[in-house]
Amino acid sequence: MYPEPLQRLLQELARLPGVGARTAERFAFHLLKDAEPDALRLAKAVADVKRMLRPCANCGMVTDETSCKVCQDETRDASLICVVEQPKDLYAIERLGMFRGVYHVLMGAIALLDGIAADKLNIEPLIDRVRRGGVREVVIATNPNLEGDTTALHLVECLRSFDVAVSRIARGVSAGSPLAQASRAVLEDALADRRVVNSA
Amino acid sequence: MYPEPLQRLLQELARLPGVGARTAERFAFHLLKDAEPDALRLAKAVADVKRMLRPCANCGMVTDETSCKVCQDETRDASLICVVEQPKDLYAIERLGMFRGVYHVLMGAIALLDGIAADKLNIEPLIDRVRRGGVREVVIATNPNLEGDTTALHLVECLRSFDVAVSRIARGVSAGSPLAQASRAVLEDALADRRVVNSA
Repeated sequence: MYPEPLQRLLQELARLPGVGARTAERFAFHLLKDAEPDALRLAKAVADVKRMLRPCANCGMVTDETSCKVCQDETRDASLICVVEQPKDLYAIERLGMFRGVYHVLMGAIALLDGIAADKLNIEPLIDRVRRGGVREVVIATNPNLEGDTTALHLVECLRSFDVAVSRIARGVSAGSPLAQASRAVLEDALADRRVVNSA
Repeated sequence: MYPEPLQRLLQELARLPGVGARTAERFAFHLLKDAEPDALRLAKAVADVKRMLRPCANCGMVTDETSCKVCQDETRDASLICVVEQPKDLYAIERLGMFRGVYHVLMGAIALLDGIAADKLNIEPLIDRVRRGGVREVVIATNPNLEGDTTALHLVECLRSFDVAVSRIARGVSAGSPLAQASRAVLEDALADRRVVNSA
């Protein structure tokens, strides 16, 4: 029914997360109607993100320079490394404006069922950073799921022989979410990680 | 906070209809993580839609050939022309599989407030088609709103001097939608266009 280029655009748009056939159509018809330079700017932006961005030589974060903005920032505490899976996780923490350390981006998590073993992740360079010294603490902020947990355990193992504190971000009930609606897994975490709040 | 190419991609994605900053981020991070050939296929598809599609020489529909699939189809009734505003409107009617006539795509509607006058639309070629003869009926299927109505009135005026029936698609309550929830405008249409269902 659609001419081939339009059909192809619909297919590619439907690969975006959360985009079904209807939304892909809405986007495609918008681009079809859009002035040519406007639509081509989107095409170029997609291509440029793949062509111009590369991993930061130090932490693996995406950057259009040799090293990323955080690694370049001399006011950051380079002795405190927060390990995240993806660039979006780094941005989520940066958005808080409260973390003054630096990062290490693994570019994924161990997922053996998907064929992602530890050697496919940006882990060796993290161990090198710790080995070179000057690192006080590594905060593991992988996702609270099977892959994130597997990755965290692996990192703890890798860093065991170094004189560095290794921590994981806390898990429990989410601020603002009713406890009665929390899942079994969330409540189990919350009970297991309970804190003594009175001193004996 | 974001490297320039990523920032630019976020901006361009947020121009898509219904896409806010959060959704643009979700798309951008997906493309960032995507394998390079996969992401570049989207970039190429967007560019190709603008570069390879052109208006059908006869009806104005987008096509990657000289004339569109419907105009090429000799089993269609070329004496019955359905006039729509946009390619997406044509697809909506084609999807029904019940219309066996042909189309004329205006590529917009008269919207004087937005500076879109009749001469910016694909109207002259429609009048030429009728003038050349062989057209029995023109069904106006512009949108049921101010711009669509203005355009329809203009088309009726343009076609007045020709020996051709001009009709408009019906307006009224929508099949399946509760009458009690219909808007004032819908109910007014439904009452004004009521049909006698018993013969006197």
